[in-house]
Amino acid sequence: MMADISLYGLPGIPDVQPGDDLPALILEALARAGLTLRDGDVLVVTQKIVSKAEGAAVRLADVTPSPQAVELAQRTGKDARLVEVMLRGSRGVIRQRGGVLILETRHGWICANAGVDRSNVGSATGEIALPLPLDPDASARRLRDALRAVSGADFAVIISDTYGRAWRKGTVNMAIGVAGMLPLADERGRPDMFGYHLRVTVVARADELAAAAGLVSGQADQRLPVVLIRGASYPRGEGRAVEMQRPPEQDLFR
Amino acid sequence: MMADISLYGLPGIPDVQPGDDLPALILEALARAGLTLRDGDVLVVTQKIVSKAEGAAVRLADVTPSPQAVELAQRTGKDARLVEVMLRGSRGVIRQRGGVLILETRHGWICANAGVDRSNVGSATGEIALPLPLDPDASARRLRDALRAVSGADFAVIISDTYGRAWRKGTVNMAIGVAGMLPLADERGRPDMFGYHLRVTVVARADELAAAAGLVSGQADQRLPVVLIRGASYPRGEGRAVEMQRPPEQDLFR
Repeated sequence: MMADISLYGLPGIPDVQPGDDLPALILEALARAGLTLRDGDVLVVTQKIVSKAEGAAVRLADVTPSPQAVELAQRTGKDARLVEVMLRGSRGVIRQRGGVLILETRHGWICANAGVDRSNVGSATGEIALPLPLDPDASARRLRDALRAVSGADFAVIISDTYGRAWRKGTVNMAIGVAGMLPLADERGRPDMFGYHLRVTVVARADELAAAAGLVSGQADQRLPVVLIRGASYPRGEGRAVEMQRPPEQDLFR
Repeated sequence: MMADISLYGLPGIPDVQPGDDLPALILEALARAGLTLRDGDVLVVTQKIVSKAEGAAVRLADVTPSPQAVELAQRTGKDARLVEVMLRGSRGVIRQRGGVLILETRHGWICANAGVDRSNVGSATGEIALPLPLDPDASARRLRDALRAVSGADFAVIISDTYGRAWRKGTVNMAIGVAGMLPLADERGRPDMFGYHLRVTVVARADELAAAAGLVSGQADQRLPVVLIRGASYPRGEGRAVEMQRPPEQDLFR
């Protein structure tokens, strides 16, 4: 039996440097794997390599923390320069308790440390902070446009990040940028098999795809920041991941 | 190139009835698909068919709502008998606003309507409510034991449910029962590629697997309640999904 859905981690993507041509690196990795992009494929790319290629990395030695950053750093036990980088990319603090700092990013994502990463950014000393891409939806669109110009196929691109969740331990990858798809698959009002109408079923398809890719990329000892998903159905269109954000007035958990 | 991970929706699983032999139905579906269980496989089974087979369905005509259910029904615009079924399976109300009712289930899961389902349960009139299985970890274990007795392979079983999330629109499948695996893959302290130690990376592997399976099973016009995932790595062991629950004292979002 043919698999309904197949996931391929693209091997050989090097440590990405500022200014690197990410579309070219991905095309090379696809060629190395003997894969070509097809209609309906999804490329899931971890935000780290997007941020790195876009030159978002910040040397902590160059950061002067604000008084707010110093104060939050004291309360959380974090490096004040790191907190400063988090605050620069944020609209505000959602929760703080002990060493846990949940921020709302400039894009509207609610996540620990505003998604700023200190591990695995090409420095053995941990002295570099890597914020999220400035506009992950735009990053996804640029990446897709560049790859489409070569391949011609109608595929989707997802920029993923590793997220903690309310109520549940452990992280799961979620989508923070999309292109060539709608992030939400709206199944409201479609009759189910027995004729009773589904009343509220909006599926976060982009998050499902990002989580699935995390099964391949989410190992510390691998370097598989790009995963090709083949066979998954998703709504085509010019969507943006920020459409998945629940507006504050509808949000019961801020 | 071989896929790293393959997902197979098992075709031909019929509408499950109370008392049905679910392991037998799954073995028949595997045989129909030409698949045999192998070491390292994961079977993701939607909670609906588990609840149905276990006879958890409740006829609303047989339910007398309590005063609390009547009051909550008035505030939410829901059927009081349905709310009664929700409350019977719950420890308490976490949030209520308008028609949204977030409960903590008897198992400790925080979810809309305590996971009680009214659609797609074999009734065209919607007069049947389907609660979650009484103990999804035990359901997973029984299912795995029965299938192992036949196949001999060392695989995992996940019972999945469709979940809304804080802050993000759309539902994603998550794990509410597991067997043959640990739900959390602990990567704390493992050195990453550059020698900097990962400080907090506990991956909710069972939730990633459940979300991936949702790409196959989550269509209203299909009947693919069992998905086989082949090639995913996960920590073996005798874990329980409830280990993923964040204890109330560590939970910033109750």
